[in-house]
Amino acid sequence: MRQNTVQHQPLPLFTASICSLIQLERDSNTPLYQQICEKIREAILSGQLAEGTRLPTERALASALGVNRTTVMNAYNQLASDGLVEGHVGRGTLVKRNHFNYLDDNFDADGPSWLYGLPTTEREIVGPDARLLSELASIGDDVISLAAGTPATNLLPAEMLNTIFADGLLRSRQSALGYCPVEGLLSLRRSIAARMRKRGVAVDTQQILILSGSTQGIGLVGRFLLNPGDEVVVEVPTYLGAIQTFRALGARVIGVPIDSEGMRVDLLETILTRHQPRLIYTLPTFQNPTGVVMSPERRRRLLLLARRYQMPILEDDPYSEIYYEGHQPQPLKAFDTHTQVIYLSTFSKILAPGLRVAWLAAPEPMIERLSLHKQIFDLNTNALGQWTVSEILQRDNFIENHLLTLRQRYQSKRDVMLQAIKTHLRDGVRVNTPGGGFHLWCRLQGDIRARALLREATREHVAFVIGEPFHVDGGGHQQFRLSFAFPEEEKIEEGVRRIGNALRRLQARRLQREEQPPSHGEHIPMV
Amino acid sequence: MRQNTVQHQPLPLFTASICSLIQLERDSNTPLYQQICEKIREAILSGQLAEGTRLPTERALASALGVNRTTVMNAYNQLASDGLVEGHVGRGTLVKRNHFNYLDDNFDADGPSWLYGLPTTEREIVGPDARLLSELASIGDDVISLAAGTPATNLLPAEMLNTIFADGLLRSRQSALGYCPVEGLLSLRRSIAARMRKRGVAVDTQQILILSGSTQGIGLVGRFLLNPGDEVVVEVPTYLGAIQTFRALGARVIGVPIDSEGMRVDLLETILTRHQPRLIYTLPTFQNPTGVVMSPERRRRLLLLARRYQMPILEDDPYSEIYYEGHQPQPLKAFDTHTQVIYLSTFSKILAPGLRVAWLAAPEPMIERLSLHKQIFDLNTNALGQWTVSEILQRDNFIENHLLTLRQRYQSKRDVMLQAIKTHLRDGVRVNTPGGGFHLWCRLQGDIRARALLREATREHVAFVIGEPFHVDGGGHQQFRLSFAFPEEEKIEEGVRRIGNALRRLQARRLQREEQPPSHGEHIPMV
Repeated sequence: MRQNTVQHQPLPLFTASICSLIQLERDSNTPLYQQICEKIREAILSGQLAEGTRLPTERALASALGVNRTTVMNAYNQLASDGLVEGHVGRGTLVKRNHFNYLDDNFDADGPSWLYGLPTTEREIVGPDARLLSELASIGDDVISLAAGTPATNLLPAEMLNTIFADGLLRSRQSALGYCPVEGLLSLRRSIAARMRKRGVAVDTQQILILSGSTQGIGLVGRFLLNPGDEVVVEVPTYLGAIQTFRALGARVIGVPIDSEGMRVDLLETILTRHQPRLIYTLPTFQNPTGVVMSPERRRRLLLLARRYQMPILEDDPYSEIYYEGHQPQPLKAFDTHTQVIYLSTFSKILAPGLRVAWLAAPEPMIERLSLHKQIFDLNTNALGQWTVSEILQRDNFIENHLLTLRQRYQSKRDVMLQAIKTHLRDGVRVNTPGGGFHLWCRLQGDIRARALLREATREHVAFVIGEPFHVDGGGHQQFRLSFAFPEEEKIEEGVRRIGNALRRLQARRLQREEQPPSHGEHIPMV
Repeated sequence: MRQNTVQHQPLPLFTASICSLIQLERDSNTPLYQQICEKIREAILSGQLAEGTRLPTERALASALGVNRTTVMNAYNQLASDGLVEGHVGRGTLVKRNHFNYLDDNFDADGPSWLYGLPTTEREIVGPDARLLSELASIGDDVISLAAGTPATNLLPAEMLNTIFADGLLRSRQSALGYCPVEGLLSLRRSIAARMRKRGVAVDTQQILILSGSTQGIGLVGRFLLNPGDEVVVEVPTYLGAIQTFRALGARVIGVPIDSEGMRVDLLETILTRHQPRLIYTLPTFQNPTGVVMSPERRRRLLLLARRYQMPILEDDPYSEIYYEGHQPQPLKAFDTHTQVIYLSTFSKILAPGLRVAWLAAPEPMIERLSLHKQIFDLNTNALGQWTVSEILQRDNFIENHLLTLRQRYQSKRDVMLQAIKTHLRDGVRVNTPGGGFHLWCRLQGDIRARALLREATREHVAFVIGEPFHVDGGGHQQFRLSFAFPEEEKIEEGVRRIGNALRRLQARRLQREEQPPSHGEHIPMV
């Protein structure tokens, strides 16, 4: 104990200096005693009033501040009951031990052991290259990001939302701002089921579960079906968030390659004869990252296989409303005659990620069980987002016109990016023309690796995602994803031009190296 | 296969009947071919057009609808590529097998086995009496609910939100509607840290993690610290959602009784000498359900114990802003000199549950690890809610005036309920006068059980929560919780009056039974 640090300052001077700490706001809603108490508390906690400091008497402080003595008494009482000061007969009111004087305290300098939690295999949670991604996320203003699968800022429907709020928020306090059933707002579940029926999926309201984003859906289904060590089949490449989630649950992830018609279902069959996976995860429509649509024939065969092997399929379908040519592909679930398909989609790409509303369509017994799991994760999805989406869906033109705009704008961005690739990356890169979605999937020609290109591109202040984190088979070294949804058209053009610069530098350096004789730095075998 | 069901209707008649299904909207944004395709698809999926039905020729339908032949061709092609119809040489275009004719299909009538997921011990997830609670949640309009810890509808700040939205949503599209860092919106984390410092807690922005409701926080901390079989100490009684979450994680929950000064820390010490719990969960301020505030002396001793046994404390503090007398108690974490306390609070009670914004304050290394876990659960908390709260907190008077109103209104409701209990339950019930929060904790006198009272009260159309689900020790049979925040004052008075009726009926029946001789229905031992 450090009782020897008690200070004995001349009282009047000290009262004056304490008064300077206490600026009272006499027309504030906060009572005066509380204002006094708060200021003194701050001074104690910040170290301005050291341990053992004797406070002015109630009478002295009251007269100095021009307040009633009772006011100061109440403030002191509160400080005492908070344990910050204590009264001593004959010594007045003293500041107690300063709780926050960490520097003077060597006890437990590194913090207690539990601070670091269970010895989880953290690498499995972070997943491959997640740090790379988070670095990309924190890029500055001068960097052009072609990395994120995020809607363009000017296409986030703030005007629509303001109309909805101004029209209905006051009338709908409870449904928009109160607690909400775990399964979701009934009106929203109903609208979603109706929209899905229009797309040929036979579902009703009870088969819809509202989620706080599709990531939650992947996690819930994973937890529901997978024990640690169980196997999951995914496409190669596939959405890296799904790989992360499955791995974090301790599942083993098996890859099936994808080609221009989607998942190689013939190879899936081979896997199913040798392994016993518990789940097939697929993005059949405008796949992330490849943009590929699974062919009707492959869809049929996939469903047949799933049925034969009694295997559930998780269909992740975030992009199907963003189609550019022809018509909107139907979900796999539209052909699901034997409830093999759990369907997952989201409003993050077509309305706003910040609403955090997604949904899952599955048989009712499964919805009931998943709700129990969801309840202990987050009780329910935010009602404001759910109510907002529900109001939008009930005004037919709102959503349909918005979708039309999105398709036009994103198609135009896609075309700008394709044209820029033709201009600036002509010989170096092969790319497909996806019929929908937010991404182009690029393959470097020759033996240049995407990682080397990204390193070079970073110097040009342009970012994208390399192929490796999308691959569970260790591949993807020569591939990379360019996302065109977020940046403005000029930025897309400029970003691709910069990648072109980076690529040419890489190529030139490589050529140079090949022409040079082996340098002295090389290891000559000692024979 | 049921090829024998092919229908041969006279074509002109059938064309007419198909035309009646297809109401074209010529000024719609949806192309005509797509409208035609959608109507036919709906007719097929709904069974109006049976399997094998021959569609009109393209020419016939085009002329009947008054559209170009190419339009019908495009519609038919789309239906074919969706697998709904197929062309046969010499037979025209036929409707394929109807995928949704479940009734005719006996295969897998009960659904595949995976539908029911892993053999989780569902009882543990649901927790005690959750069904009872969900029954209460779905009560009708004529039922008065004194069950839910929910803000009053008219105190949900819809006006404030509309002002915020109208002022800033258009300017803040990306931060309000885009993706958001896992840890939360920086401006919100900063405001929360500043508010906590005002209350004497030494935290900075990096020590704040935004959550999608406090339930998520209990789950995250639980997952972070607890392996299945690990022990957690909770108060008896305590918040039933926490019990549910800990049990769902497979933890063993140990109870420490509570008295008028909060957790019986003396008994906790005994437990710590015998068990090795991994976590202490406490609601030190306006505890749910009892309303008790832990005394400063107990707080100090709790922190000492936690330090001695190297034990983290999870402080759940949803109600501390809703105080009625004197001043706002400081959090336990304000006295936490050795980072023993993980602090959890929420905007659900003081702003709106539907915003789904809560937070956790903990040492930085823990926040980093918890963020990784949160990322795979829901990627991030809804940006719209976070941005809204952040805007509110930046306008000092908004939140302070709102809190003043809440305190006044809820205090008045508390007093109405206390008065009604005095009037209608005088001899039957003992109740405390909580200094804050949303709940009264009642104890039935004599040997009447709360469950019996609830059964009787349901007939009076009034609901409340019985004590048992709050108790991990099997107790609470004579206790029940009455919540005064949600119902209007007249409803509170009327609700308590009805409970009084129910209680008097129970008492009268019991008296009658005691006066009656044993009935013949009793089992007489055979000697």
